[in-house]
Parts: sequence; C-alpha cells; structure tokens
Amino acid sequence: MLIIGERINTSRKFIEPAVVARNAEFIQNEARQQFAAGATHIDVNAGTLVNDEPLALAWLVETVQAAVDAPLCIDSPNPAALEAGLKLHRGKAIINSITGEKERYRDILPLVKEYGAGVVALAMDDSGMPRDAEGRIRVASALIEQLTADGVPLEDIYIDPLVQPVSTSPELGAAVLETIREIMRRYPGVHTICGLSNISYGLPQRKLLNRTFFVMCMEAGLDAVILDPLDREMMACLYASQALLNKDEFCMQYIQAHREGKLQ
Amino acid sequence: MLIIGERINTSRKFIEPAVVARNAEFIQNEARQQFAAGATHIDVNAGTLVNDEPLALAWLVETVQAAVDAPLCIDSPNPAALEAGLKLHRGKAIINSITGEKERYRDILPLVKEYGAGVVALAMDDSGMPRDAEGRIRVASALIEQLTADGVPLEDIYIDPLVQPVSTSPELGAAVLETIREIMRRYPGVHTICGLSNISYGLPQRKLLNRTFFVMCMEAGLDAVILDPLDREMMACLYASQALLNKDEFCMQYIQAHREGKLQ
Repeated sequence: MLIIGERINTSRKFIEPAVVARNAEFIQNEARQQFAAGATHIDVNAGTLVNDEPLALAWLVETVQAAVDAPLCIDSPNPAALEAGLKLHRGKAIINSITGEKERYRDILPLVKEYGAGVVALAMDDSGMPRDAEGRIRVASALIEQLTADGVPLEDIYIDPLVQPVSTSPELGAAVLETIREIMRRYPGVHTICGLSNISYGLPQRKLLNRTFFVMCMEAGLDAVILDPLDREMMACLYASQALLNKDEFCMQYIQAHREGKLQ
Repeated sequence: MLIIGERINTSRKFIEPAVVARNAEFIQNEARQQFAAGATHIDVNAGTLVNDEPLALAWLVETVQAAVDAPLCIDSPNPAALEAGLKLHRGKAIINSITGEKERYRDILPLVKEYGAGVVALAMDDSGMPRDAEGRIRVASALIEQLTADGVPLEDIYIDPLVQPVSTSPELGAAVLETIREIMRRYPGVHTICGLSNISYGLPQRKLLNRTFFVMCMEAGLDAVILDPLDREMMACLYASQALLNKDEFCMQYIQAHREGKLQ
C-alpha cells in the first residue's frame, strides 16, 4: 500500500504561515512525523499561495527531502509550480494531478514524461465529473488508454475516482467503490488512489466516516491513499484491512503494529 | 439490516450459570440491553447444556419474549431443542442453522416449514467446508436451490459463508467476501449473514479486526449479522457503513446515532 501523507498543505492551519515564513524546522517536523507513522510518500501543496506557489513548492521539495528519505507527491494543477518542484526532486516523484481536460492534459503530460514521474489521474474531463460509476469508469479508462498511448507506463498511473460528500451525493460512495473495483479488474498493474476526507463533508464524526470508507475502498482494491498518517485509528484500519485481505503475510505487520502500541 | 444480538449464549461467561439457575432477571436484562442498543433479533443458545438443552431453550424463548417484543434466533444443531423453543415462540423465528449435510438437512427442514421460520444455512455439506470462494458459492447455491425446491421462500434463507480465522486461513477472508457478493448477485431476495468474531481468533485487538471485517462484509452486500450490539464501536461502524452505502436516507439514522452519543 502506497501511503501519501497529506499534512503539508497550505490549506491546513499552521502550514501556510510556516511556508510563508520558510520555517524549515516546522515543515521538516511534519514530514518526519508522517514518515515515522508509516507514510511512504509526503504530499506537498502550496495551492493557497497563488503567486508564490512555484517558489514555495521548490522550497518545500528541498526542505522535506532534506529531512526524510522519501519520494514526494507534488500537488498542484499549475504546470509551472509542478516543474519548479520536480526540478529539485530526488527519486521518483508523483505528480498530483492530471485530468482528461484537454488543456490540463496537454500541459501536465510533458512533465510526467520528462521527469519519469508517477501521476494521479482524476476521473474527470471537459464535460465535468460523471455522476455515476459507469461514467467515471469510462472517463478513467479513456485517461488510462491515452496516457499509455502517450508512453506513460501503466504502473505509473494512479486513478483517482473522485470522492464526493455522501451528505449531498449519497449514491456516489458506491459509485467510487465500483469504479475502483472495475478499473483494477480491467487494467492489471494500474493503481487507484483516493483522498478520503471529502466523503464526510457536512456530517458529524467525520473521522469515523473517513476510515470506514477507507476500509471499503481497500476491499474494492484501492492500493494507494492520501491521508493523515498521524490519525491513529485510520492507520489501525489500514493494518487490520491488510491482514484481513491477505496482504500481510502471517499478519506480521499487524502484530508488529500491535506490539508498538499502534492499534489501541 | 437485520441485527441478531449474540450475547445470550451459554458458552459466554455468566450466561451459563444464569440459565442453569433459571435467573430470568439476568437473562431479561441481557435481552433488553441488546434490544435497546439496536438488535432486531435476539439469539438464544444453550448448546453447552447438552442434556438440558431443550428445556433450557424453551425457558429462554419464553423468558426473553416476556421482556422484549422481538423475534428470536433459536440457535442449535439439535432438532429436539429447536422444536422445544419454536413451540413457544411468538412471531417469525429464525432457525440457526441448517447445512447441506444430508442428515442435518433432513432433520431441520420440517421445522423450518412447520413453523414458517427463517433459516440460517451454513455453506457446508457432507464433504466439509470448501476451502475457497468457488466451493462455498457452489455449496451455498446448491442449498438455496434445494431449500426453495422444498418450499422455503428465498427471503427466508440466510446464507452464512462461514467466517474462519485469518491467522490460520489467511485466504478465506477474501473468499467469504466473494461468496457474499456472488450469492447476493445471483439470488436477489436471499439474505447473507455472518458471525464475525471467528475472523480474529488467535490475533490481538480482536474487536478492531471484527469491526473492520464487518465493514468489508457490508460493502460486499451482507444484510444480516450476528454480533454483540453492546460493542459501541461495532455499532458505530454499522451506522457509518449504512450512510456510506446509501442505505440510510439523508444519513438520518447516522445523524440520530450521533445525537444520541452512539458514535463517540
């Protein structure tokens, strides 16, 4: 399971002022904590700093990789900001994200290829986000066909089926699960990825909904996720799910997590 | 979702002595608590009291139904004990359980028909418990075909795919999920049911594994369950899952559970 730690995002409290002030210690501490908690990748997002975004992302890439030996997920719709980060990145980055929108696809694809990066591909195109599983599967499939035709290896593609709030789109939870299941069945080797927190927007006890949906997504075949690895109950759900789905030989990681007190 | 409260079982501490002593107050308190916590049915099992089982089950049926206005799940492989309970039961009972074993099928079927009961049907036959999803789907399908041919309505059948410990049978978790999904797809109107606690046998933090597996089963289509409704985290997973799977209109039950403090 690929686990992208989501905390270094300027839309989060404390992160924006730390990035604006170039407070390396604060950001590096966030990176180290997420890595220690099990993140395999660290997301960096400076989207709220519109004019400063390229410089901020470049600084974040250098600052975070000086603290942890992990690849990053560079998170922006802005090709200039992405490139500023990619130029400084060591190892194989993940670009977050491309879509089927013509202009965005045209702008982001060359970066994916030039830097040999993985890429999160959102299941949407110029006609928007399809309202049902069938539509999302169609758009996601078209994206996979296009990306592979353009030379991106299947195993570098992370399809994001686009989680939306069940409070306003009650039927879309099941549609996301069906999209994950069908894309994983149809394209062996491709990845699926979700951000989880949207699912619970507008409802109480959001973390309960987020982690419950995470379990369902893993059951459907999800093999990458963007989450807060400091959420202990979320990570406990991950360890438990891997054991239950026979993805944790002899339940060794589960038992180890228990010994380290991570399951309480 | 049909929720069978599992607590009144003489294999559990405190229950056996209460049944032996015919302590109605203790048993009725167990029944009331489970009903208040959301159980739709109360399981009664006196299996440890071999010689006294028929009398004990009869007493349990009368005692529990004097306390709560709920149908019971009468839990025994012994036809005489089942009948002693069924004779006194008000409303539509569920018999737990029949199997594809020739002798057991022959002995239990007449009770299902005479009392118009629902019936839990375990996915096993005289050759044992199949070791993979394909085998369990085959045995479960054969049972459904036989039961309906013998006049049992599809909607009275609860297929139990037989949960086994992932510690010793790591591949069977996924097999159970696949069995649930395929049986629900193949026979619209039939039910699937699980006991959950077996899944975690031999591992630490068992409740975490049980409720995580419960979420996966619901995602696969499970519509009935045998559990301890006093396990608050388990019930919180149920409310969250129903909301996420669009089985809780406007998330009303989820929000109500939150207001009643049941999700903390």
